[in-house]
Amino acid sequence: MTPRGALFFLTCMMMATHTWGQERARDYGISLGVMDPGELNAITDVQGVKVGHVTLIEDDRIRTGVTAILPHSDNIFQYKIPAAVYVGNGFGKLVGSSQIQELGNLESPIVLTNTLSVAAGIEGVLDYILAMKGNEGVRSVNAVVGETNDGYLNDIRARHIDRTHVLTAIENVSEGPVEEGNVGAGTGTVCFGFKGGIGTASRRLPASLGNYTVGVLVQTNFGGVLQIGGVPVGELLDQYSFKNQLESADGSCMVVVATDAPLDHRNLERVAKRAMMGLARTGGIASNGSGDYVIAFSTAEEVRVPFDKSKANVPITGFLHNDDVSALFLATIEATEEAIINSLIAADDMSGSDGHTVKALPKEKLREIFKE
Amino acid sequence: MTPRGALFFLTCMMMATHTWGQERARDYGISLGVMDPGELNAITDVQGVKVGHVTLIEDDRIRTGVTAILPHSDNIFQYKIPAAVYVGNGFGKLVGSSQIQELGNLESPIVLTNTLSVAAGIEGVLDYILAMKGNEGVRSVNAVVGETNDGYLNDIRARHIDRTHVLTAIENVSEGPVEEGNVGAGTGTVCFGFKGGIGTASRRLPASLGNYTVGVLVQTNFGGVLQIGGVPVGELLDQYSFKNQLESADGSCMVVVATDAPLDHRNLERVAKRAMMGLARTGGIASNGSGDYVIAFSTAEEVRVPFDKSKANVPITGFLHNDDVSALFLATIEATEEAIINSLIAADDMSGSDGHTVKALPKEKLREIFKE
Amino acid sequence: MTPRGALFFLTCMMMATHTWGQERARDYGISLGVMDPGELNAITDVQGVKVGHVTLIEDDRIRTGVTAILPHSDNIFQYKIPAAVYVGNGFGKLVGSSQIQELGNLESPIVLTNTLSVAAGIEGVLDYILAMKGNEGVRSVNAVVGETNDGYLNDIRARHIDRTHVLTAIENVSEGPVEEGNVGAGTGTVCFGFKGGIGTASRRLPASLGNYTVGVLVQTNFGGVLQIGGVPVGELLDQYSFKNQLESADGSCMVVVATDAPLDHRNLERVAKRAMMGLARTGGIASNGSGDYVIAFSTAEEVRVPFDKSKANVPITGFLHNDDVSALFLATIEATEEAIINSLIAADDMSGSDGHTVKALPKEKLREIFKE
Amino acid sequence: MTPRGALFFLTCMMMATHTWGQERARDYGISLGVMDPGELNAITDVQGVKVGHVTLIEDDRIRTGVTAILPHSDNIFQYKIPAAVYVGNGFGKLVGSSQIQELGNLESPIVLTNTLSVAAGIEGVLDYILAMKGNEGVRSVNAVVGETNDGYLNDIRARHIDRTHVLTAIENVSEGPVEEGNVGAGTGTVCFGFKGGIGTASRRLPASLGNYTVGVLVQTNFGGVLQIGGVPVGELLDQYSFKNQLESADGSCMVVVATDAPLDHRNLERVAKRAMMGLARTGGIASNGSGDYVIAFSTAEEVRVPFDKSKANVPITGFLHNDDVSALFLATIEATEEAIINSLIAADDMSGSDGHTVKALPKEKLREIFKE
Repeated sequence: MTPRGALFFLTCMMMATHTWGQERARDYGISLGVMDPGELNAITDVQGVKVGHVTLIEDDRIRTGVTAILPHSDNIFQYKIPAAVYVGNGFGKLVGSSQIQELGNLESPIVLTNTLSVAAGIEGVLDYILAMKGNEGVRSVNAVVGETNDGYLNDIRARHIDRTHVLTAIENVSEGPVEEGNVGAGTGTVCFGFKGGIGTASRRLPASLGNYTVGVLVQTNFGGVLQIGGVPVGELLDQYSFKNQLESADGSCMVVVATDAPLDHRNLERVAKRAMMGLARTGGIASNGSGDYVIAFSTAEEVRVPFDKSKANVPITGFLHNDDVSALFLATIEATEEAIINSLIAADDMSGSDGHTVKALPKEKLREIFKE
Repeated sequence: MTPRGALFFLTCMMMATHTWGQERARDYGISLGVMDPGELNAITDVQGVKVGHVTLIEDDRIRTGVTAILPHSDNIFQYKIPAAVYVGNGFGKLVGSSQIQELGNLESPIVLTNTLSVAAGIEGVLDYILAMKGNEGVRSVNAVVGETNDGYLNDIRARHIDRTHVLTAIENVSEGPVEEGNVGAGTGTVCFGFKGGIGTASRRLPASLGNYTVGVLVQTNFGGVLQIGGVPVGELLDQYSFKNQLESADGSCMVVVATDAPLDHRNLERVAKRAMMGLARTGGIASNGSGDYVIAFSTAEEVRVPFDKSKANVPITGFLHNDDVSALFLATIEATEEAIINSLIAADDMSGSDGHTVKALPKEKLREIFKE
Repeated sequence: MTPRGALFFLTCMMMATHTWGQERARDYGISLGVMDPGELNAITDVQGVKVGHVTLIEDDRIRTGVTAILPHSDNIFQYKIPAAVYVGNGFGKLVGSSQIQELGNLESPIVLTNTLSVAAGIEGVLDYILAMKGNEGVRSVNAVVGETNDGYLNDIRARHIDRTHVLTAIENVSEGPVEEGNVGAGTGTVCFGFKGGIGTASRRLPASLGNYTVGVLVQTNFGGVLQIGGVPVGELLDQYSFKNQLESADGSCMVVVATDAPLDHRNLERVAKRAMMGLARTGGIASNGSGDYVIAFSTAEEVRVPFDKSKANVPITGFLHNDDVSALFLATIEATEEAIINSLIAADDMSGSDGHTVKALPKEKLREIFKE
Repeated sequence: MTPRGALFFLTCMMMATHTWGQERARDYGISLGVMDPGELNAITDVQGVKVGHVTLIEDDRIRTGVTAILPHSDNIFQYKIPAAVYVGNGFGKLVGSSQIQELGNLESPIVLTNTLSVAAGIEGVLDYILAMKGNEGVRSVNAVVGETNDGYLNDIRARHIDRTHVLTAIENVSEGPVEEGNVGAGTGTVCFGFKGGIGTASRRLPASLGNYTVGVLVQTNFGGVLQIGGVPVGELLDQYSFKNQLESADGSCMVVVATDAPLDHRNLERVAKRAMMGLARTGGIASNGSGDYVIAFSTAEEVRVPFDKSKANVPITGFLHNDDVSALFLATIEATEEAIINSLIAADDMSGSDGHTVKALPKEKLREIFKE
């Protein structure tokens, strides 16, 4: 590790252990949708799911980071889980999608970072999986790494993320509340012209609909015409795409959807599609330059896919019937919408490379708008 | 033609020539999005596009119909046009999609009807194309027929639509304003628990963005939690899916997107995907039982695909650069959203088979809600 | 029924009850692949699968028909089965594919006919399903109808097939040997420049690989450069596409793959893709004008999908692990290859509309070629 | 660069400049298909396409490498080209596919390497593109990196490839003959149980069909039942998958298809699909564990996609009509088949990690077989 690497590491550690007290949509009286959130209103409401961040903020040029999502606490390579990817708009570099689609499962943590650091993301995931007890003979790993482009605030061409940051993010994972806003892979992102970042939310279905939980985590970096709970906030604040009849809506959104409902690949792909409908409700348009990808997975133990077939002594059983998935669709739409809004509300102003500054959503004005 | 057939025909003719004065969203002060509509705020704002309906309302059982969209007035088989299909949710019977996706073009009128009448739709289109001057040698036609299920109000199992109704709808096509609501393929449909139907809207891009028009026509028959311009109308009227924690959001939406922008198949598919984002903005969730399909096509003369290669003396030229499509995405989202709302506002109460009645959106209450 | 209709019906009945003694590839010492066929070397080796034909040969213009495949003998709508569609080349009119892909199951017989008769196919399937005991409340049916274009030998524009032919083909289904060649939907088809038709074959996996059966039925109507068991028969007989440096390989192939292996939709889609690799081994090229579709389904009882969820008292269980599907892939490739060759060998010379004649593969020369 | 790195570099340089005299299929009198090859019978027959290798063979553990394909000699980021990806079987880690599919173009060299070195591949491509004159402001690059798993002969878990090897492979590119067999990304691969490697072939269409060239390069590492020109070589040599009724056909094949025909994304995707039909003709089965991907691109100058829209002063023009692509399909099938066979014939015996040895196709026996 070079001295600069050490400094980064220190920075990460500091960021990873600090406490935070971000505001969220519900603190403004903003209630989105008709379904109830889970206890934390976070992806970690899905039992077993953990999230970790590494945030790199250094001098006036580096504004980036890594966010890792771990679906369960066992060896994820040995106990794969059903998963699917949906491409909302494919101007992006998501790694690992074709194998998920072919085999229907996920065998690695999900790592989010910046566009030019997906290689570091892969290396970190490989380090993690190859070194894990029980994986000594593994020679093929489908690392899943997503990204958005933080190059307006971050000196992205210098590729400051390396594999150690990725490993640290994976090691940082924990249950409980998830830090949002300018953190991890959301450190340098921009959304609807305001500071974006990491956001999360969840929905819990009532017992009559199966008592399942859907949790969503987003990395927001996209454009459009911001609506919050249907209120045209972008227009009210005079900040939106195509305002001056110029095209300017690019960016990206990575969405991770977790559920404990026992869904197979096909129904997870359908769930993943609904996340883009949640994004649409915030005013996002999936512009040409947007890399909008959704990864959905099921944590239900009974549908895990053991790498070693002989461990499948309990047959896979109990996938949900198609007729039971619509409520999960609505939960996904609502949780995605709220996660995006949370990412905006949690974010603070950020200055970065080339003297660029991006303002957060003006909270005072927001409070006024939603007082009415 | 049987006597009953003749009666149908008479009914159709009457419906097709009557005048109408339906209300639309803008009559309620509801303005959706940031872009300007075209002159008619209808799919027919796209030069050359024509729409025709046949409406079957007979005794207390038959509530169905046919809507035909003709992209241009030349021989559509001889002068095919770039087109694409996007499947929002595939619980539906759209006919013709795989050939559109493979060859990238459309060679027939688009016909919308009810779920059990797609065969009649195909026969009508074949009759139309095979009989057309210049098509004497044609032995293969890719008829494009979409549907939603009007079986709650309509005696759908009896399959009252036959090929003559389809031919009549095609013959009925005209430019100008498009009749909306309980008409054509929307005669018996239900949307968000209210009476749905046919709706249309359009957006015109400013000159700086190419001056293109996007027009949308929808056949609305789906569920969810209705929002109008972000206002949670479904909740305010206490009518929405999963309200009593029961699953009940099925249905379908057919969407036709026309544009005069010179888009190739790939970018038309991207446009088609955005229509589902417009649907999301109305509160639709693309439930398990929904057949949500979008067909998008370009009417630009310079990108037509002649059946006879030798007629392609002017090479295909001038497809839009990817960088120029985002504004068309937003236009598609907005026009789809408004077309859906228009379909609801234009619709009236309807009673039909099995004593079923579906109420229209209560206009008085709507007026109150939007007065605020 | 018109008099002509009655004559057709009579013709059908005669065709359906006659006996036949067609030759097959193995009668020529042609052994394709390394796996063993099932007992009948036919799709009906898969327990419960039944096939029926209606053949229309009338005066010098009508050379067409219908072939129906029934996956099991229960109410297929009430007991749907996992299924998938793969589009090898989409210049075709297969009806029903999008719902199979979305919901992952099949709820109707599979009907094959000619290109301009898919509407009749739909009507026949609807008649069959709607009239079936237990389906009284059914208002939506996903009819699956495939086709190839027999318009060279058949007066296709006149659309001689009607729903009664389709119903008859469904009623004609039986287990046991499957008639091949100029029969049913293969009556008027042309393949590699020779007379094509219906063909079938199967493979049985050894016990060590699960003892599963894969059965394939094809309707062959495509071009390319014929190979049989690797022998360049097309070149030896001086009959192949692009021979005179002219483009002439159009046509289509419908492929139906049945297996008793408990595969889910995703793995059935993978199986379906392999059928095109079997077609490739015969020298087919999936030319621009080809409508090459594969429908694959599983008949395993334990993975049936009841329409009425409450009947799913035994949870769906025991889908095969990904690691176990490769042998099924090879079985599919081999059975498809052999089914295509069988369709050619079983076919006889046929004369039809416009004075057209298509010669069968010259059997004497074939025997010489394979004697060596 | 560490000392070991330097040694690698030296090794690479030596490999890159040595001369070779590999045999090819046609040296054995094996002539595949009915179309004529180009002058070199190599992907480099497509004007402007260049190939470069780096081969790492060190002590008894390292048997791997990198192969780079450059579509043209201008700045590929500034002058993107139409491209498409087809996934034959997605158990693989191809990077860059979703952006190619969304935007329809390729903006980087194509790099092939081993499964655990795709990150190094990305870093090398980024180094190359970011450093290139004219790309100073570039902050997003869609690196395209494919792989197969050489972990039987190569100590793959140690990840010996780094970005410098990738850069060197890109710098090594040249026109002219392409080294085949145990070279570059094919150094450690295994195919049909014999030593695989890199292979290439091409087809030239006659003037009547457009005079276009199709060139293919493959990295072969897959299983099945080997056929050469239809001769069941695998069975004759008693070496094939499932021989002892055990499942053992895994592996992968990367295929790169270049053409100077002016094809758009959609038709390039269709071309890419046909490469899998060429693979099928060699006896490949795309087994569960196979990562079979095809990348197809067009080098035609008139369809290049400039990054800077304003440089598009000559409108994109002259895409081929659908009707003209079938001959390119056949050319792709034949060239892929021959490229795979060439990779096997050019390869020599190889020993590597863990004392593993893989024998090449026995050439004497091959000569005997094809003498007959």
